[in-house]
Amino acid sequence: MKKIDVSILGCTGTVGQRLVEMLSNHPWFNIVSIAASERSSGKTYKDAAVNWYLPEDIPEDLRDMTVVNTDPGEAAAPLVISALPSDIAKETERKFAEAGCVVESKASAYRLEKDVPLIIPEVNPDHIQLVDVQRENRNWDGCIVTDPNCTAMGLIMVLKPIHDRFKLDMVYVSTMQAISGAGLPGVPGLLITDNIIPYIKDEEQKVINETRKVLGKMENKQVKFADFKIAASCNRVPVVEGHTETVFIKTKEPVNVEEVKKVLNEFQGEPVKLGLPTAPKKPIIVRDEIDRPQPRLDRMAGTAPGMSVTVGRIRPGFDENSLLLTLISHNTIRGAAGNAVLNAELLYAKNLL
Amino acid sequence: MKKIDVSILGCTGTVGQRLVEMLSNHPWFNIVSIAASERSSGKTYKDAAVNWYLPEDIPEDLRDMTVVNTDPGEAAAPLVISALPSDIAKETERKFAEAGCVVESKASAYRLEKDVPLIIPEVNPDHIQLVDVQRENRNWDGCIVTDPNCTAMGLIMVLKPIHDRFKLDMVYVSTMQAISGAGLPGVPGLLITDNIIPYIKDEEQKVINETRKVLGKMENKQVKFADFKIAASCNRVPVVEGHTETVFIKTKEPVNVEEVKKVLNEFQGEPVKLGLPTAPKKPIIVRDEIDRPQPRLDRMAGTAPGMSVTVGRIRPGFDENSLLLTLISHNTIRGAAGNAVLNAELLYAKNLL
Amino acid sequence: MKKIDVSILGCTGTVGQRLVEMLSNHPWFNIVSIAASERSSGKTYKDAAVNWYLPEDIPEDLRDMTVVNTDPGEAAAPLVISALPSDIAKETERKFAEAGCVVESKASAYRLEKDVPLIIPEVNPDHIQLVDVQRENRNWDGCIVTDPNCTAMGLIMVLKPIHDRFKLDMVYVSTMQAISGAGLPGVPGLLITDNIIPYIKDEEQKVINETRKVLGKMENKQVKFADFKIAASCNRVPVVEGHTETVFIKTKEPVNVEEVKKVLNEFQGEPVKLGLPTAPKKPIIVRDEIDRPQPRLDRMAGTAPGMSVTVGRIRPGFDENSLLLTLISHNTIRGAAGNAVLNAELLYAKNLL
Amino acid sequence: MKKIDVSILGCTGTVGQRLVEMLSNHPWFNIVSIAASERSSGKTYKDAAVNWYLPEDIPEDLRDMTVVNTDPGEAAAPLVISALPSDIAKETERKFAEAGCVVESKASAYRLEKDVPLIIPEVNPDHIQLVDVQRENRNWDGCIVTDPNCTAMGLIMVLKPIHDRFKLDMVYVSTMQAISGAGLPGVPGLLITDNIIPYIKDEEQKVINETRKVLGKMENKQVKFADFKIAASCNRVPVVEGHTETVFIKTKEPVNVEEVKKVLNEFQGEPVKLGLPTAPKKPIIVRDEIDRPQPRLDRMAGTAPGMSVTVGRIRPGFDENSLLLTLISHNTIRGAAGNAVLNAELLYAKNLL
Repeated sequence: MKKIDVSILGCTGTVGQRLVEMLSNHPWFNIVSIAASERSSGKTYKDAAVNWYLPEDIPEDLRDMTVVNTDPGEAAAPLVISALPSDIAKETERKFAEAGCVVESKASAYRLEKDVPLIIPEVNPDHIQLVDVQRENRNWDGCIVTDPNCTAMGLIMVLKPIHDRFKLDMVYVSTMQAISGAGLPGVPGLLITDNIIPYIKDEEQKVINETRKVLGKMENKQVKFADFKIAASCNRVPVVEGHTETVFIKTKEPVNVEEVKKVLNEFQGEPVKLGLPTAPKKPIIVRDEIDRPQPRLDRMAGTAPGMSVTVGRIRPGFDENSLLLTLISHNTIRGAAGNAVLNAELLYAKNLL
Repeated sequence: MKKIDVSILGCTGTVGQRLVEMLSNHPWFNIVSIAASERSSGKTYKDAAVNWYLPEDIPEDLRDMTVVNTDPGEAAAPLVISALPSDIAKETERKFAEAGCVVESKASAYRLEKDVPLIIPEVNPDHIQLVDVQRENRNWDGCIVTDPNCTAMGLIMVLKPIHDRFKLDMVYVSTMQAISGAGLPGVPGLLITDNIIPYIKDEEQKVINETRKVLGKMENKQVKFADFKIAASCNRVPVVEGHTETVFIKTKEPVNVEEVKKVLNEFQGEPVKLGLPTAPKKPIIVRDEIDRPQPRLDRMAGTAPGMSVTVGRIRPGFDENSLLLTLISHNTIRGAAGNAVLNAELLYAKNLL
Repeated sequence: MKKIDVSILGCTGTVGQRLVEMLSNHPWFNIVSIAASERSSGKTYKDAAVNWYLPEDIPEDLRDMTVVNTDPGEAAAPLVISALPSDIAKETERKFAEAGCVVESKASAYRLEKDVPLIIPEVNPDHIQLVDVQRENRNWDGCIVTDPNCTAMGLIMVLKPIHDRFKLDMVYVSTMQAISGAGLPGVPGLLITDNIIPYIKDEEQKVINETRKVLGKMENKQVKFADFKIAASCNRVPVVEGHTETVFIKTKEPVNVEEVKKVLNEFQGEPVKLGLPTAPKKPIIVRDEIDRPQPRLDRMAGTAPGMSVTVGRIRPGFDENSLLLTLISHNTIRGAAGNAVLNAELLYAKNLL
Repeated sequence: MKKIDVSILGCTGTVGQRLVEMLSNHPWFNIVSIAASERSSGKTYKDAAVNWYLPEDIPEDLRDMTVVNTDPGEAAAPLVISALPSDIAKETERKFAEAGCVVESKASAYRLEKDVPLIIPEVNPDHIQLVDVQRENRNWDGCIVTDPNCTAMGLIMVLKPIHDRFKLDMVYVSTMQAISGAGLPGVPGLLITDNIIPYIKDEEQKVINETRKVLGKMENKQVKFADFKIAASCNRVPVVEGHTETVFIKTKEPVNVEEVKKVLNEFQGEPVKLGLPTAPKKPIIVRDEIDRPQPRLDRMAGTAPGMSVTVGRIRPGFDENSLLLTLISHNTIRGAAGNAVLNAELLYAKNLL
């Protein structure tokens, strides 16, 4: 099988580093270019990625690859995965789509646009239909496909089987988010050590909107947002990686703990059936120990490490329509680079590459 | 003015250390004995408090005081403040009350008993009436007065003016609790560094019950628990001191942010009026900065340091009856030793000492 | 090939957990029993190891194995690996050696006894000769072989090729040791967060003595301790795993940085030649980046993860006989369980099992 | 007494914030202007100091003061205290000195220039004579006085009485430096949590040179650097404030622990005699507990909080001329803002203002 050429935009940040790591030995894809801002372009990758933060070293074959500009003239490829900052993504990703590239984007710029699919492959692979609408609307040879915010990601995956079975009425999530989610340089060590920062810019609104879009239904070539109330409080905590979220849920139908565990345990979705290489066998892992999940222990969960969400402390609220649980997902793998790669695999399996 | 003699039970733990610090130069009270378990008794305080964790050194005059047994024969005084572990507290505190001591207890053993007052001086000083009921019921010369769990403390203070004005319908609190709340040795450093533990034994039930009791009303010499739904998720985070709590509230009457700020800002209660020395001028401090409160910055808030609760991020939920906010209170000062001392001052001001 | 049966003593602590992890799929060894103190014996392993701290779950086949007493009647096997606390190790390990077991011990109890080998397989495999002396002296069918303290381990490995080439005159090491080195429960989170503890009981003396023994020479069936001055300052820091050590060295012969890098890079020793499964291809990894080694990035270094020591910042001191460097080694793998397993493999390769 | 007007250059960084805190109620000085880079100038201080990291709020009277440019035209005052980055300091501080201001500088730009005093008031107040030399050389109406690097500061104070009594032969210091020493934004939280960074740019050379200058003697209007060998390893650790340093010392004369404690305890210097308001009664505090000093407990030591250095673990090395000890000093108070203020007080007391 011939590998598909892939280009990475925004290769020096935390998500970019994870993308490099996940794609450097990928069975289907082959990195042909790595691009970043002007500060980095022209340098070798090892000189550009000065703040390499992963225990695994930079892959040998990429150490001396030259970083290019985030410009289709330099970095176009059939598949482009973008981890660009959102302010830059808007224009740059459009250019790549115009140039005929399939752009899988981790940026927030296009997530809520009506003709742009926002996809978690296990949850709403059918939203990929929006690509046709998008091409028609925009006259692009390529297209843009997006994936959700790192905090919304784990939440949506866990809500999906619960919503299908019990119909969500209301969701309130309070998060304890890892430092790596803020990128690099990100949060100063001086401000987060022995401390919590109870606010993350724009994060709560992203969680609210994206959760409702991904859980929405395709109707007449549009996504009809899922219809439940949702609120969020997002906090930064001194944890290296792994977002922890406590969730309070009200359902329209009576809910019980055993059946919740059952639907979470049985949840699988298309990726395993399609044989996507980065798909974890169980997207959701339910733990019964009273003191799990914990970020240091559970962030790398999954047969594809870091791709499963772990749920625990599933317990009743104060009545038969309320439910409490705690979940953890790896914010730079499942919450970012991993879902982007899985989306790219989905596009390939669906013959969109 | 002659100072009242006070004895501290459980003087070596985190709360015991704070009690020693707060009482060693108290204008009304005078430490006459310090007591702890057999492992410590007979030693000088400086040898017993091997895990002294406070930046201020052990007060000079207590360094060589001998630790005695937690027994009325050795440690009785008109006022006894107890920071004993709850399993020991049940019997020990009873003995002191029988011996005629006024026992102000930080332990959970008696908090929910019908004839035992559970008091935050700013919130429900009138519950002190239960002392008469208790003495009648139990034939004690002394009595037991308790204060709430460290997590419930800040929550209750903030809910009080909101409940008075808007009537609570439902409360869900998700906490990020400091390590010092687990006492000493408490949580192993190995298990909490770069990690979160999403469970604290019995904590959620304490928050639920105690919040409703303290906010309850005296009726026919009994406390009628406040009538609203409440649920909690309690988490341990790598922060030294200061509990952070995100709160989702539904009210029976329509709520608006400006008026919430107003009632919180204006809240004061009896302690300031009574001139209690440990009363902060403003029990609740409202911060308007988008990224406050933060535990490292706000835990020592208050004219009496660590005695005020700081509230921020007050914002609407998804409808006119829902409200979100984040609060921080110092778990070993306001949440423990400080409220105990303030309760003792209240008892004195009410001529119960 | 038939696997050798192995028994693990002290299976619930941090080193015990690592031993279970490293031996559960070992190509040469087969766990037949796991033993611990009375508090744990009789329980299944999953119930006994309540403070399991490793991200990998307990191996499936050991979850329900019953923990037995640390007694030869229950736990004897041809090979016994001990991670017992030192006070218990003295008598218990003797009993196993008397019962004919080969005891490889991580405890400090026997390390400095004249007829007990203290071995790092890459450094002094020839000290294994002491087993014969020991058996003669003590009339044991089995024997006891020990490995050094976790802090001495990395230091000795790095000093070995430097001593061979430049002759050590003096060594001063200042350490920044990970929390896991203190075991479980170990250092309270309250005392180590945002803090350093500048003292670790007995640690400095262990580093001093053990370094000189392991680097000593066999002469007349005795180890003649290496002859150089050595001093140490041992500190606990808020890092989960991986000991960092800054080292100041004076040599008898003139030293230069390039040649130091060369001898460190070329160092290999017997284990690779003998094909020991847990031997890293390069026991010492030299890094040239100005800001390496770092514990979070380098603790898992090595083809056998966590078995290599990483050295960086190799630079001249103030004259041609002085040298500075910084090293990191994984304290519970190379510094404990890993070296114990490697020692066991050495014993097997040398036909001592 | 009329207060002297003072201007603060670099008012938004970590040292600038401490200067604001220490000078806002100073008995001798009165803040008349606060200056910072173009990014901040023109804003009110509360808007400019967005990363305020101190628990005490911005002083009420400075919240709305306008930040001006670091230009004598806007910020000249009889006394100017500078916490500017060193690259900017060179030219800016010269301009202020030319304009007639007495510049007390925390920047490294001028520290090693021959006619610039580098002063710790307790150690070498006589070096102030260099001001005359400087004015003569440079034709300035004002002058520049500097204070040492935060890491050198505590080390020098402790070495001073030891050098006076036992004559230093060699010093090796290994440091564990707090995050606040890197300023703001400083070290990313992602890179320092659960980690150590074993390198700080230029730091080791500063410690080496500055220690020898401050401990040097005035001879013929020049400082003759102290004559001993010195080497350093500087590390960043996850501690908020307080630098910890382990020190290995060789002395020319035989050294003994009791006498070392005595000379450290008795050390006082001129500031107390001169009645400088920020002078701690005991500049060096010796602790006998085996596990002290610790940064969280000892960083705020001193009658002027954070101005004393705490020393512990004083013990012999391997012969009668070697000594080991561990010290902690507060890097943004004594190590920066506090020493700058104390220097300014010294200048005032010596009639140089």
